[in-house]
Amino acid sequence: MPLKFTALYIIVVLIVRLKCMQDKNYSEEHLCDVGPLAEEIVSYRDVVQSIIEYTVSGPFKGKTYEELAKFVDKFGARITGSEVLEQSIDYMIELAREESLNDVFTEDVEVPHWVRGEEKITMLKPRVKNIAVLGLGPSVPTPPGGITAEVVVISNFTMLDDTPDEHIRGKIVLYTPTYTTYGETVKYRTQGATKASAKGAIASLVKSITPFSIYSPHTGYQKYGENVTKIPTAAITLEDADLIKRINDRGEKVELHIEMSSTFDKKTSRNTIIDIKGSEHPEKLVIVSGHIDSWDVGEGAMDDGGGLLISLAAPVILKRLNLTPKRTVRSIFWTAEELGLVGAQAYEKAHRNESDNIDFIMESDEGTFRPRGLTVGGTQEARCIVAEVLKLFNSINCSTLVETDSPGSDITVFTKNGIPGAGLLNDNERYFWFHHSEGDTINVENPEDLDLGAAFWAAVAYVIADMSADIPR
Amino acid sequence: MPLKFTALYIIVVLIVRLKCMQDKNYSEEHLCDVGPLAEEIVSYRDVVQSIIEYTVSGPFKGKTYEELAKFVDKFGARITGSEVLEQSIDYMIELAREESLNDVFTEDVEVPHWVRGEEKITMLKPRVKNIAVLGLGPSVPTPPGGITAEVVVISNFTMLDDTPDEHIRGKIVLYTPTYTTYGETVKYRTQGATKASAKGAIASLVKSITPFSIYSPHTGYQKYGENVTKIPTAAITLEDADLIKRINDRGEKVELHIEMSSTFDKKTSRNTIIDIKGSEHPEKLVIVSGHIDSWDVGEGAMDDGGGLLISLAAPVILKRLNLTPKRTVRSIFWTAEELGLVGAQAYEKAHRNESDNIDFIMESDEGTFRPRGLTVGGTQEARCIVAEVLKLFNSINCSTLVETDSPGSDITVFTKNGIPGAGLLNDNERYFWFHHSEGDTINVENPEDLDLGAAFWAAVAYVIADMSADIPR
Repeated sequence: MPLKFTALYIIVVLIVRLKCMQDKNYSEEHLCDVGPLAEEIVSYRDVVQSIIEYTVSGPFKGKTYEELAKFVDKFGARITGSEVLEQSIDYMIELAREESLNDVFTEDVEVPHWVRGEEKITMLKPRVKNIAVLGLGPSVPTPPGGITAEVVVISNFTMLDDTPDEHIRGKIVLYTPTYTTYGETVKYRTQGATKASAKGAIASLVKSITPFSIYSPHTGYQKYGENVTKIPTAAITLEDADLIKRINDRGEKVELHIEMSSTFDKKTSRNTIIDIKGSEHPEKLVIVSGHIDSWDVGEGAMDDGGGLLISLAAPVILKRLNLTPKRTVRSIFWTAEELGLVGAQAYEKAHRNESDNIDFIMESDEGTFRPRGLTVGGTQEARCIVAEVLKLFNSINCSTLVETDSPGSDITVFTKNGIPGAGLLNDNERYFWFHHSEGDTINVENPEDLDLGAAFWAAVAYVIADMSADIPR
Repeated sequence: MPLKFTALYIIVVLIVRLKCMQDKNYSEEHLCDVGPLAEEIVSYRDVVQSIIEYTVSGPFKGKTYEELAKFVDKFGARITGSEVLEQSIDYMIELAREESLNDVFTEDVEVPHWVRGEEKITMLKPRVKNIAVLGLGPSVPTPPGGITAEVVVISNFTMLDDTPDEHIRGKIVLYTPTYTTYGETVKYRTQGATKASAKGAIASLVKSITPFSIYSPHTGYQKYGENVTKIPTAAITLEDADLIKRINDRGEKVELHIEMSSTFDKKTSRNTIIDIKGSEHPEKLVIVSGHIDSWDVGEGAMDDGGGLLISLAAPVILKRLNLTPKRTVRSIFWTAEELGLVGAQAYEKAHRNESDNIDFIMESDEGTFRPRGLTVGGTQEARCIVAEVLKLFNSINCSTLVETDSPGSDITVFTKNGIPGAGLLNDNERYFWFHHSEGDTINVENPEDLDLGAAFWAAVAYVIADMSADIPR
């Protein structure tokens, strides 16, 4: 046994080394030259180290996980428009105020309020079987009595296009795409109902957008297009989707009965904003953020409880350490991310005339597993500066910069307009195993990773907010 | 990316090599000397290779997976006492007969017939939350109206013993053992209700016996002891068990409402027996086996559809290749394994006077992932011979012999009496992730591993059934 462990240890070290060798040298690869800024950035080494020590091994150790556990244990899932979401916003504000963060305010946002009712799918032919289901939000309900129809199995949109309408009319379309990446595969969830409806389907189902399942359906947002009949739409498990496909491939008909109920109206929710006011340029903003709403299954501990809590931790840590940067560090808890980035869009609209003041915008919404660095959107000049800042995080292996055009979800509302921004790069290989399912609970998180994430978030924000140069656009 | 893949490939090869280096040399480690038998066993190399080729790359390639998929797609779960189990037995007999296996017969067994009804647990305090549940078979139902009571969280039996009865009386015991191995941890499922009832609990729950969960409860057998009140008992997910424990650790009370219904009676089921009659000692038996019943969740594709199908494949392959060994190769599909090894016990009782004729008994009930060799119970002399046989399987990396006192589940009924026996050693590290849950589906299996398993099963049985020496006791 010890031999096995030693071997495993060596292998893990090897993997990490190889990963580092490949990803780490953004500055070298891009021949970055940030001029005298390089020396200035190096001068932040001590303050960065003090933030890390305070958070990872000092008084803050374990606090982010502990607060996240208390938060999700108390509130559970927090779907947009629900009372529990508003209560959880009040709770987070209270937590901030207890930490003497006094620049805390909220901004009202009108949000969709979709409430899942009873959902049930039964396979009637070739045999009777219960099919686990999660309706996609905001799906319309089925008509009274539900829908009973044959299934047409569609592997991809090309196949849908190639299938004559009369083979689809009056039937249930089941999409069974092969999962490649979330980004590539999720279109079958977001656009599936609209495309199926355009060809006359009366409901559409999608194989859950995940690479792995223990019979877990995964919900998510879908958007009805203009000028099509809104049809009920839901996700089923990989296992049942594959079952139906196999039966279908053998030439047997599959008939399903679908009953889904739900309600839909509008409510008022709030974006929450916490400022550490800048000492020299309080109007300039370095933003850290995560969303506070979640889907209505699981606890939203991963999506996006972790991002939320490190975005609370950042101003708390700076406040506790009396670190006041030159620019303002603003933490935002977006509302209604899951139902279409509603909170972020409302913020962008309300603050459009100040958008030049956003120096850098960060978001954590792809997991708070072991942090590794940032995924960065913006010009190469901007990335070179960020890469220089990331060198300060060698000691915790968080120096990797990955280029991206879309560094987040909520913040794409800003970065698509040229505002430089970044997402938290982390070891999130299993993220989609749990995403939007009952499996998104605190069990997925761990204290050490959250400590590192909180330290990294606070320190990156501090350095960028304090250094002499703005991040160029 | 290619660099990553190369690195990963090297790592995987390294792991396999290291694994082999450690486990493979049973003969050397134990200074085995099987005399002239060694040379005789080597002479089987060609026939073993022909079985492997026929199954892995020849006409049988893919067939075991294909038949397993058709089987589980057609019948789904097959709980003891159900009509669907009996239909699935008829189907398997038909499959055997289509392969011109004519020595096929069944033996009636009286079996328990436990039928799960509606099950629902709701956390009422400190907040309302649905708790996913799977009753343990054969749990009694809750009284009409269900049970509402406070939870006492118990980490282990020592803690239970140390807790005064008055702290447990009238309450719900929740066991939250730390999963170490299945063998060590499963006692909280099998004995939990009895021990809790003895101290006055009115229901008992157990954190599912698994190291990993995507909010999946795992059912399983439990046995009420004599002289205690039978109380309702069920498994909940890791996530909810941990949630309740955390709330409890913070000093808050957790109150649950439990409603469980079920029925219980007796039915007649059947063990199924398929013989390839021996040419010289037809009375002597080399048995391969798996169980055909499953739990009532998932499809029983892994537990034990894979073991069942390779145990059908063994005689089919020998028949197709016209290989008639000296002893009889008997394939047994046990019934009612999950409800307490009922089929195996009935067979042992009915055939006790012929038990000396069992030369070697094999079972696959711990997964049919990539096969690696056998877990072997019996004397060292017996193991040395089996180790020699396993050397024939170097080409498919199936030469590992792991010593065990308990090489299976059903066959322990025989091996505990000194009959030499073996279980299929395979890469089943994730077995308990899916075990006894809705996640036990064909998605867990793969065609190549099942081909290798079928080839290995057929060839090991053939060699042991044909060689000159009996396996010593």
